Amino acid sequence: MASMAILFTPHMTHITPRPVTLRRGRRVSCGLIDPDGGRLVDLVVPGPLRDAKRREAASNPARVRLSRIDLEWVHVLSEGWASPLSGFMRETEFLQTLHFNSLRAADGSGSVVNMSVPIVLSIDDLQRRAIGGFDRVVLVGGSDDDEPVAMLSNIEIYKHNKEERIARTWGTTAPGLPYVEETIAKAGHWLIGGDLEVIEPIKYNDGLDQYRLSPAQLREEFTRRNADAVFAFQLRNPIHNGHALLMTDTRRRLLEMGYKNPILLLHPLGGYTKADDVPLSWRMKQHEKVLEDGVLNPETTVVAIFPSPMHYAGPTEVQWHAKARINAGANFYIVGRDPAGMSHPVEKRDLYDADHGKKVLAMAPGLQKLNILPFKVAAYDKTQRKMAFFDPSRPQDFLFISGTKMRTLAKNRENPPDGFMCPGGWKVLVDYYDSLDQLEKDKKLRETVPA
Amino acid sequence: MASMAILFTPHMTHITPRPVTLRRGRRVSCGLIDPDGGRLVDLVVPGPLRDAKRREAASNPARVRLSRIDLEWVHVLSEGWASPLSGFMRETEFLQTLHFNSLRAADGSGSVVNMSVPIVLSIDDLQRRAIGGFDRVVLVGGSDDDEPVAMLSNIEIYKHNKEERIARTWGTTAPGLPYVEETIAKAGHWLIGGDLEVIEPIKYNDGLDQYRLSPAQLREEFTRRNADAVFAFQLRNPIHNGHALLMTDTRRRLLEMGYKNPILLLHPLGGYTKADDVPLSWRMKQHEKVLEDGVLNPETTVVAIFPSPMHYAGPTEVQWHAKARINAGANFYIVGRDPAGMSHPVEKRDLYDADHGKKVLAMAPGLQKLNILPFKVAAYDKTQRKMAFFDPSRPQDFLFISGTKMRTLAKNRENPPDGFMCPGGWKVLVDYYDSLDQLEKDKKLRETVPA
Repeated sequence: MASMAILFTPHMTHITPRPVTLRRGRRVSCGLIDPDGGRLVDLVVPGPLRDAKRREAASNPARVRLSRIDLEWVHVLSEGWASPLSGFMRETEFLQTLHFNSLRAADGSGSVVNMSVPIVLSIDDLQRRAIGGFDRVVLVGGSDDDEPVAMLSNIEIYKHNKEERIARTWGTTAPGLPYVEETIAKAGHWLIGGDLEVIEPIKYNDGLDQYRLSPAQLREEFTRRNADAVFAFQLRNPIHNGHALLMTDTRRRLLEMGYKNPILLLHPLGGYTKADDVPLSWRMKQHEKVLEDGVLNPETTVVAIFPSPMHYAGPTEVQWHAKARINAGANFYIVGRDPAGMSHPVEKRDLYDADHGKKVLAMAPGLQKLNILPFKVAAYDKTQRKMAFFDPSRPQDFLFISGTKMRTLAKNRENPPDGFMCPGGWKVLVDYYDSLDQLEKDKKLRETVPA
Repeated sequence: MASMAILFTPHMTHITPRPVTLRRGRRVSCGLIDPDGGRLVDLVVPGPLRDAKRREAASNPARVRLSRIDLEWVHVLSEGWASPLSGFMRETEFLQTLHFNSLRAADGSGSVVNMSVPIVLSIDDLQRRAIGGFDRVVLVGGSDDDEPVAMLSNIEIYKHNKEERIARTWGTTAPGLPYVEETIAKAGHWLIGGDLEVIEPIKYNDGLDQYRLSPAQLREEFTRRNADAVFAFQLRNPIHNGHALLMTDTRRRLLEMGYKNPILLLHPLGGYTKADDVPLSWRMKQHEKVLEDGVLNPETTVVAIFPSPMHYAGPTEVQWHAKARINAGANFYIVGRDPAGMSHPVEKRDLYDADHGKKVLAMAPGLQKLNILPFKVAAYDKTQRKMAFFDPSRPQDFLFISGTKMRTLAKNRENPPDGFMCPGGWKVLVDYYDSLDQLEKDKKLRETVPA
């Protein structure tokens, strides 16, 4: 994936970096949007103190085991994506998130930051009793099941009303919401909040860690590139030329607005996704091909992975997606139709109104400092044989290719119209569905051969 | 009910009124908390213009019929309880209410007012088609079915996603929520928002209209009484001596804080309530007896009816109850256990955590200017034979009498312990349940006698 490692490629060295040294000797971003709360949260224990923290963890018998999704949230929190949140939510934060999608600053200034999705850790009755009178617990999990990953201090345990959490986050309690089925349904009836200290940076060792840039690293990179605007594009799907057109066009618009060097943060979501989404590793291969094919300009594009799990909570979740990118230095956010949406799990309709995401985003508390850029609709223009912005004066010339249609074509090894997606990118998709077929065949073979 | 008409009784005349004349020649409150948005909304058409408005309404064929609850909301809106809201919500306001429980000011200042409960008007497909290209509609209903009550202008029609509205407002979609069953379940799939003009003040002609004081009238009264603090007590139940103790004690605390003349706004909810609540007319009789018996001091108490319908939406609704009282001039709000709560309609538990109401209220956007006074727990002290604040050092001395227990006693014509409620007030309750019994008997009699 050499072509994707565009963060540190030689062709960028002609841009003069603007390192700024502030107190504590850390190089920090200059001229970028302020992180929420004014300071980027960093919950990773500094290197020299890690051994002591490990010993402290080893001697503490109060332990909570992390699921894969819990670990993803530890990762998110540790790097300050949720700044100023400094750990799993206590009840005050949980209630503000559920009712107001925002947190009021503790300093009494009345200022608020956006926080629309609960970042919580659940425990069951047994764990609650085991924790007993401890005021700090060790969070274990990761690659080695008993490895201490983090400490949670000044803990607060409070009731996990699942029904209310689900209703207020998703606007439905219908069975079949992926995140709910995956994690909330089987979660305990208590939540445990507290201040988080993560013993060392979270790594997944899946060959993609180099793309998991923290908000601090992204800010450093944007500064190094002399970005005077950063526009973020959140995605969890393969990139087609309609997306690319949109990103290219956004840069053109920003240049027209007077910005000299707008940088695109192409930011695929890397945490939990539902079973029928294309997995991260395949998506990254596909994005790599898109960059290789020159559809996007590596000089003005930073590709990185956003480590959050996916809620599929539509207008509620899109706020989280935007807010986290503020913390990474983005001051422009591109929002499309039905962001973070999905089909209703029971009824034959989309779960959310396709326009609510962008409307809610434009009104959300704490997001006023972010510039929201609504998607223009791109479709396949049969006359030009390429993706283009839909022209309502000649609708008959346009073909809308939905995600479902795209996946069906790839599954059947059919080709989309020329110009829909770069051929290298399309091949990755076809290969992915081939690999699924192969898995299915292997499984059937195993089932028919007696052990 | 002479003793309840304490607003204008002779014994108040010794207090020097402080009339203040401002622009437009209206007497307005001085020194009271500002209404939300800075100006109290008044949507009632001024007297001299009513005939013209009636003619305009008569000539407009686009009509929407109001239900009883719709009419209660027209009343609420018309008097500015929901200031700065100037009509039924458009989609922008609806979405902000559902997601943020607050509305951002249109002036770009970034300031917000609280608004937690959707105030919306639904229409069905047929009505939507009938309204067609009109940009204003006549709202009809009230005592005469075809009487124009109000005009709605610059209308916006948008989708009524009932499931999402219910989930985000109540934190559950369980069947059996009273307000949902009563009005949302059978409502149309569209909402119509716009600017409201109410042709004349809403009256119910039920003998209680004199208690339905508008926020402007309440402000005038508080000013007349030289109130330097107004503390509001929302209720929808009979008053027992525990409530009275709490209100008396609150006044004592406010005096200790240095206020010279704190006035109690005793403010029973007068709109829709669920079937097993005691009806407004009986509650008002009961409150009258409490005042007569001297349990509360009429000189420092204003009794009035809050015209809002009840949602039973717990922590979401308590914000509305508090916010509306700001508009009426209250700067202190008393909040108890599980405000606006009820049993879960399906599960054997309370729908809301009993403490969430006061927690959410203390953090709610737009309510910072209101002082929240959490309830102390009052219970029956067997040693003193009266209601007293619960003393955790001697729990065995206290008897908790729940609303359910109270109703069961009254139904069975049993007496509560001496000192629980003034005898006159208790008799009203017993009479109410007697009247229910009589209704039941009459019904059975009718059923057994062939027509």
